[in-house]
Order: sequence, then C-alpha cells, then structure tokens
Amino acid sequence: MSIPVYDWLESYAQSNGEKTAVVDLASDRSFSWARFNERTSKLAGYFRDHLQVQRGDRVGILMSNTTDVLEIQFACAKIGAVFLPLNWRLTVPELVFIVGDAEPVVLICGPSFQEAANEVAEKVASVREVILTDCNGGNSPYEQGIHSGDPVLTLTDLTHDDLSTIMYTSGTTGLPKGAMITHGMTFWNAINLGLPHRVSPDSVHLSVLPLFHTGGLNCYTNPVLHAGGCVYIMRDFDPRECLRLMCDPEIGLTHFFGVPANYQFMAQQPEFADADFSNIQTAGIGGAPVPVPLLEAWNKKGLGIAQGFGMTETSPTVLVLNAPDAMQKPGSTGKPALHNEVRIVDEAGQDVRPGEMGELWVKGPNVTPGYWNRPDATAETITDGWLHTGDASRMDEDGFYYIVDRTKDMYISGGENVYPAEVENILYQLEDIVEAAVVGFPDDKWGEVGVAVIVLSAGSELSAQEILVHCQANLATFKVPKRVEFIKALPRNATGKILKRTLREDLSEGPSI
Amino acid sequence: MSIPVYDWLESYAQSNGEKTAVVDLASDRSFSWARFNERTSKLAGYFRDHLQVQRGDRVGILMSNTTDVLEIQFACAKIGAVFLPLNWRLTVPELVFIVGDAEPVVLICGPSFQEAANEVAEKVASVREVILTDCNGGNSPYEQGIHSGDPVLTLTDLTHDDLSTIMYTSGTTGLPKGAMITHGMTFWNAINLGLPHRVSPDSVHLSVLPLFHTGGLNCYTNPVLHAGGCVYIMRDFDPRECLRLMCDPEIGLTHFFGVPANYQFMAQQPEFADADFSNIQTAGIGGAPVPVPLLEAWNKKGLGIAQGFGMTETSPTVLVLNAPDAMQKPGSTGKPALHNEVRIVDEAGQDVRPGEMGELWVKGPNVTPGYWNRPDATAETITDGWLHTGDASRMDEDGFYYIVDRTKDMYISGGENVYPAEVENILYQLEDIVEAAVVGFPDDKWGEVGVAVIVLSAGSELSAQEILVHCQANLATFKVPKRVEFIKALPRNATGKILKRTLREDLSEGPSI
Repeated sequence: MSIPVYDWLESYAQSNGEKTAVVDLASDRSFSWARFNERTSKLAGYFRDHLQVQRGDRVGILMSNTTDVLEIQFACAKIGAVFLPLNWRLTVPELVFIVGDAEPVVLICGPSFQEAANEVAEKVASVREVILTDCNGGNSPYEQGIHSGDPVLTLTDLTHDDLSTIMYTSGTTGLPKGAMITHGMTFWNAINLGLPHRVSPDSVHLSVLPLFHTGGLNCYTNPVLHAGGCVYIMRDFDPRECLRLMCDPEIGLTHFFGVPANYQFMAQQPEFADADFSNIQTAGIGGAPVPVPLLEAWNKKGLGIAQGFGMTETSPTVLVLNAPDAMQKPGSTGKPALHNEVRIVDEAGQDVRPGEMGELWVKGPNVTPGYWNRPDATAETITDGWLHTGDASRMDEDGFYYIVDRTKDMYISGGENVYPAEVENILYQLEDIVEAAVVGFPDDKWGEVGVAVIVLSAGSELSAQEILVHCQANLATFKVPKRVEFIKALPRNATGKILKRTLREDLSEGPSI
Repeated sequence: MSIPVYDWLESYAQSNGEKTAVVDLASDRSFSWARFNERTSKLAGYFRDHLQVQRGDRVGILMSNTTDVLEIQFACAKIGAVFLPLNWRLTVPELVFIVGDAEPVVLICGPSFQEAANEVAEKVASVREVILTDCNGGNSPYEQGIHSGDPVLTLTDLTHDDLSTIMYTSGTTGLPKGAMITHGMTFWNAINLGLPHRVSPDSVHLSVLPLFHTGGLNCYTNPVLHAGGCVYIMRDFDPRECLRLMCDPEIGLTHFFGVPANYQFMAQQPEFADADFSNIQTAGIGGAPVPVPLLEAWNKKGLGIAQGFGMTETSPTVLVLNAPDAMQKPGSTGKPALHNEVRIVDEAGQDVRPGEMGELWVKGPNVTPGYWNRPDATAETITDGWLHTGDASRMDEDGFYYIVDRTKDMYISGGENVYPAEVENILYQLEDIVEAAVVGFPDDKWGEVGVAVIVLSAGSELSAQEILVHCQANLATFKVPKRVEFIKALPRNATGKILKRTLREDLSEGPSI
C-alpha cells in the first residue's frame, strides 16, 4: 500500500500547539507549533493562490539558514509542490545550469542573493517570479505573502512515493544531478537516524550546517521536527556561540550535528576547557573522515560523538556508529541502520568477503527513485533497487563498515563534496592544457583541498596563477584547487585509466612530483 | 512502493549483540540480543525444516506470558509464517471455533494448556502437531526444537503488506473474527505510540498484560523491541512485585503499561505510599475507561499516566493523550496519533460538528486489511480505507476525543472485551428464554460486569442459577453474567431495536427493574 503523508505541523499544532517548534537565533524569533503551522499554512496558500504554484511545481530557494527555509519546505508539502534548496556558494553559471534543469516556477531569495537570483531568473524561462525575504521577519514580499495567504488544508492524497525535494549533487560526469527525494525517504531517515540517536518530543537540536545540504536538513533537523521536538537555527556557524549554546542549561540542547571542522573550531575555543556538555544526549558528526584525536578531545570532555555514513541519494542515513564503538573502531562509519540493507560487491556485482574491498551498495525505503531528468544516470546508478554508491568500502570481521574512498574520485573540502571531473572539465576549457587530473589532498584547515595536476602542451607558458584565475571565474570557491602541479604525463594503467591513487601518493612525498 | 520487512533481531544482534533484549522473570532467564536472535533463528529453522511450516502457514500458541511467546512471534516473521496467539481464558469449544477458522499447522502450548491444546488438535484437522514448552527453558519439545534447528536467514522479500499475526476479537455478531495484522501495522504502531511515549534504545519495559492481546504485545513490548530496548516479561500480574520492580533502580524500568485494574491493585499495596517512580518515563494505561481518582492517586506520587485509544484492528494506537492533558481533560482518550487520521461521522457518513456524537472512523497504515475468511465482515467494517470502529464518540472544541460507548454494545470486564451478542446467543439456547439482553454494569472489582436481562416464556420456572450454570458451561468466566434480572418485556424503540441504554439506566436505579 502507498503510505499517506500526514502533516507533522498540523498534528503537533493540534496536540501541542503552545510548545516551541523552531527558533531563528539570528533574528531572535521563536515560533510555537501553532504559529509555525499557521505561518506555513498561509505561505502555502500564498504559493497556490497568488503565485499559482501547482502540485508538482518546484519552488527554488537561495538563502542563508533561517526558519524561513523550513517554512518553505513544509509549505511545499502542504500543496504537493517540490522544495528545491539551492547551494548559495555556487556561481551564477553553476546556478543557471541547476535552475535550468529543475525549472522552478518561483525563486525565493535572501538579501545577499537577490542579484544572483535575478540573474538566474533572467536566464531561466520557467522562473516567473523572484520573491525576497530579509530572513528576519521584517517587511518583505515573503512576509507580505504570509500575511495575505489564505491558510490551506493539507492535501490528503499525497503519499510517501511523491516527491518532496530535489537536491543537486555533482556527479563524476561533472554535471550536477538532481537527486529526487520523496516524502518517504525523509520519513525513513527520521526513523533510521532518529531511533538510534534518541530523537524524541523532548529533543532540542541546534542546526548549524547549511540547510540546502541533506546533512543540515536531515541531521537532525527534520527528524527532530518529525518527533515534535524543537530546532534552533544558527545563520552562520560561530564556534564560540555554538559552544555557549551547547552548555546553556536554560536552552537545554539535547542534540547537535556537525562536520569535523565544526567540532575542531569549537575545541580550539578557550571556553572548551570548562565546557559542560551534560545536557547533550547525542552529538553527531559526518560529511568527512573524522580524525581520531578530535573524537578523543571531545570524549575527554564526557561527550561521545556518534558517527555514520550517508549521502544525498539516501536522505541520508545508511550506516550508524554508536559513540562508544567510535573509540573502539576508529575510522569505521558503523553498521547498517535498521530499515535499509547494504552490500559490498566486486566489479561483477558479487558480494566480497569480510576484509575485502568493494563498492558499497544500498537498498531500502531511504533510497532515491533516481535523478531528475536523468534516466541515463538513474539507470547507471540504481539496478534492481540497489544504489551503487561509488564508494570503495570494506567490512571487518565484527561487521563494522569502512569507507576507504569517499567515492572513487570525490573529495570533501570544508564539508562540501568536490567532484574532480567537474573541476577538470573547467581546466580543459584552457587550450594549453593537454591533460588534467584533480585529486584531494589532506589539509589541516579544510579537511581536504584540491590539487590540480596538469600536463601542458609543448612550449606553453601558462602559469599556475592564470589557471587558478580561470577556475575562480567558473567555480565555487570550495571547488577551486588550492595548488597546481605541472607534470610531463599522467600515470595511467594498462587500459589507459588515470591512476589517481598513484598521483595522491606521489603528492604526499612533497610538492614536486 | 512496498516497504521491506527488516529483521529487528538480526539488526540489533549485529549492532548491539551483548545488550539485554528480553528477560523472563518467572524463570529468571535473560537473553542478550545475540542470544535472542540465535534462539529465534534456530526456532524458525525448526519450524521450517522439522515441522514443515511454510510461508503463510499459521502457528498457534496457547501459553502464559513468557519470552517464548516473543521468540515464536519473531520466528514466524523470519520464515513468513503467521503468528496466531490464542486467548487461554477461552473454553475448548471457543478455541475449537477459532482454531478451526485460522487453521494453524501447529499448536505450541504451555504446561497448563496441554490438555486443551490436545482436545482442540483432535477436532481441527489442520493441526498436525502439538508442541509443548514448560515456559521455563527446561527440557521440552520446544527447547529440543530450538536446539536441533538450523538457523535460518530471514526472508528478503517480505513486505509491510504481508500478514504477521491473526488476533481474534469477538464481534457483535457473536462469532469471533480474526483481525489480520500486517508487519506494517506493527511497525506503524511502534512509531505512532513509540514516538510520543519516548521509546528509545534505552527503554526498559515491564510487560504484564496478556501477550495474546494487542495491549500486551504492542503496548509497549513490540515498540520497545523495535527500538532495540529491553522488555521484562511477567508471567502473572503480581501487584506487589510489579510495584517493587517499577521502583528498583537496578532494573531501571522506564516504561510500564497496564489496564486500570493493574494500577488500582498497585495503589492498594501498603508499599505504594513510599514508592519512588522517578525512573519511569512513561506509564501508559488503556483497555477500559480510566477513573479520574485513580489518575489523581498516581499523579500525587509524581507519575502522570498517559492514556490513549486503540483496538486490535488498528494494532492498536489511534488516539494518544499526554499525561498532563489527562488531568485537564478527564474522560478524554486524546488526539490522533501522527500517522493516522480519524473522523466522527453520522449515520449517513457525514462529519459531525464538535460536541456532537457520531461513530469514530479511522484510516491509515495502522488499519487492518480485514478479517480472516470474512470478506463480508471486512466489507461491512472498512469502506474506502476507513475502519468503522462501532464506537460512539465525540470531539470537544479543543480537539480532544471522547469515546462514549466503547462500542455500541461491548463492555469490558477485567480487561477483557465482552460482546453481549455472543453471551445472548448462549442464553437463547435455553428454550424457556424468550428475550435476552446483556449489558455491562459498573463494578468496583472488574470495571464492568455483565447483567443478563431475561424475559421467560409464560409459566417457565427457569432460575437465575440454572441460567448461570448454562453460561458457565459454554463461556469463558469473564463473559458469564454476574447477575440475572427477569423482566416482562425488553424496552424497544419504534423500529424494534432493543434500547440497551434504557436498560443500563434502569439497572443503575436498583436491582429490581
């Protein structure tokens, strides 16, 4: 049977209306479940009646973290529209590609992104209107829309198989692909992650990661809202303030989720020495390999950090590692969450034995039905319900999983996935470049940074500086390589495939390769 | 999409194998998740290989509360068989009807029920074997079966739409009907009840209600096991020992669920005055109307009691009432749980307004697909996915629901549903009885007891005592009326329908009506 989508906001507005649902720290706004539901319901009415947003239409957003983001997500659900959160770190050409692919009928943007949104809207015909919010509840078209909207009754025939969200993730082909997220996927993550991580109606979560990423939206923001808990939204991550909030007994935070850099920056604050985390029930970490000394530093403060593995296409939880196991099994990302299954397979699709490397495959109600407008990529990635993650993995004798390469090529810089092929495509736009390979390289500040290894045509005098300037003009900052190395020829295997592992190993020996 | 059934036991055996899963208090046995899974997996192998239990076959049980019951439930799931827990309070003729309808291939029985099981097996051809357990882990065919079984790998193609369990519930027609319980229904109850009632991997639940009832099995036994928590099973409810366990910090119970009588008996213990319930997070109550003084007595001890409404056909949670609301809205059974919807409708199926009486209807993934072998009863009870509960209800202006009659006719005696029509059918077997009506009447000890109101044929001298002896021979003790009243004619409305409400009101005025 198809499972109906029940309206969390309407339900908690009815059963616990006076309780606080969401808090926007930057604007000092706090909304009860009744008020959050009322605003969202009126926003949905504004979408439907004034902006003519139809069921299935996409609604794009380009804004910093704010409770507005959550209102828009839930307003879309109430009318069966599809939420399209855009990464505001992207350049206008990158946004034009994504928006052109997803074809939203409206873009809602924060004050810093109005110019970019207008440029995008000019180039993409589907966008009928750009709506501005100041993200602070001040007078803006967004707030006027809520004020003028007639509250809508939630659709009763929406099911878990219907689309909730499209989230773009760059693929190894270098072109971003829109992972289709169903209402069911969001629900199953609320269970697969929420259950082991003790999410309950009493949970109070601080959300610091970008809400346009699955990590920000689903770890633990949506699971906590599904349980009727409370979520604090921080606009920009401030390690000192974050640390203060985690220890403030009046706020009573129970949950926090961050990338390793968040924890690293907090541990560097002088206040860390006297911090008291006794109220925190679950601190989760993800998005990049976690250094063991970092786990140890937090463990010494009495706070075990729970790890896991997930991806946008699985919304995201796949593997879960309990905090105590994290110290016993450093480097592991845990074991399969309850309601999904995983395999590690060889190139022929056969299960490998414990200890052997293979590709991680995932199946379950948390797996995407595919990529928007990309039946080719969907067919390549999902066979018989099994999602091929592209991640090289192994399982030890105790059943713990290890992700050995985050993907075959991808690396993570400052919490953002970077797909080398995308950067390489930009490099190849320069005529003097004959061969280009981008690899991730460990970096104290960003976790990893990109290094571009370049083969120039004979006699070319193209400089590293000129290459970087070209990248900066065409790529988000986090994708721009931090270093350029010139080489005579790229190492390749017998079948001509570039040996990126060899490149990385050579890089580790010094600057000159 | 169809949601796959993932094996809770296998998952927790993998992720948290050493943690305690279930404790059988009567036999002082404790099983870790690894051991619980291993025993259950071998039991499933014994079912499949030695007893030739096929997918879809029913496995009946007739035994007191013991962890064996849970092993059998999960062993059935591992091979796709259907769990059939039988009410051991029933007489052999009653059991023969139910077993004859469900046609299990095997009956597993405890030592007190071996004779009854053998009698039933003789009369029902489908039962190929009766397997005995002593419920204590001693040498028995059941334990030998586990010992000899090859552990099975769980089916991978079982879905939430597949049958998990059949639970018999007497209908107003007087014939018990088997409510079909899917794996999905059990899961959705784990969420609909588990989420508001704070069920987590840290939950420790004490189960005292009969496991053949949905209340014993699903409040909170199955939800706590779904979360990877721990369940203590008490064989026979002992109020003094139960009270001791609830307060024992070493056991650390967090959850308890009982019918009002359980709480009443505990509150009558001398130890209640000094009881410390500070470790209990959620105490739930259900199965019968809850007297407000009882709630108050427990509130004074610092323990709020959470109420709700459910039925076997909804596995069971439909409405949930938070403990604080229980004191504000005495008599209410709460508001709809998140993942289901309810209506109160008039006889034409139209929604009534707040304050007006109507019949409670329920729709959602927690609703039964119907009754075993009874397409007629299914069609009468479920239309367009809406289950007609038969319960007269109203909603107040604040959205709280009240069940006014548990069903139009049914009453609850000692925690057991009694359907008057079934008792009346037995009464009508006596030729001297011209008219018979059974109604529930308030009783200090049992909550309600049945009163039989009888019209005898002219000149008959049939005595109340003779009528009761006939009932005792044909009905479980809890169904036997506790009082017989003779009357000249039953009150009826213009269309000839017996006015049971008038009968009850007249009874309340005194013994002579």
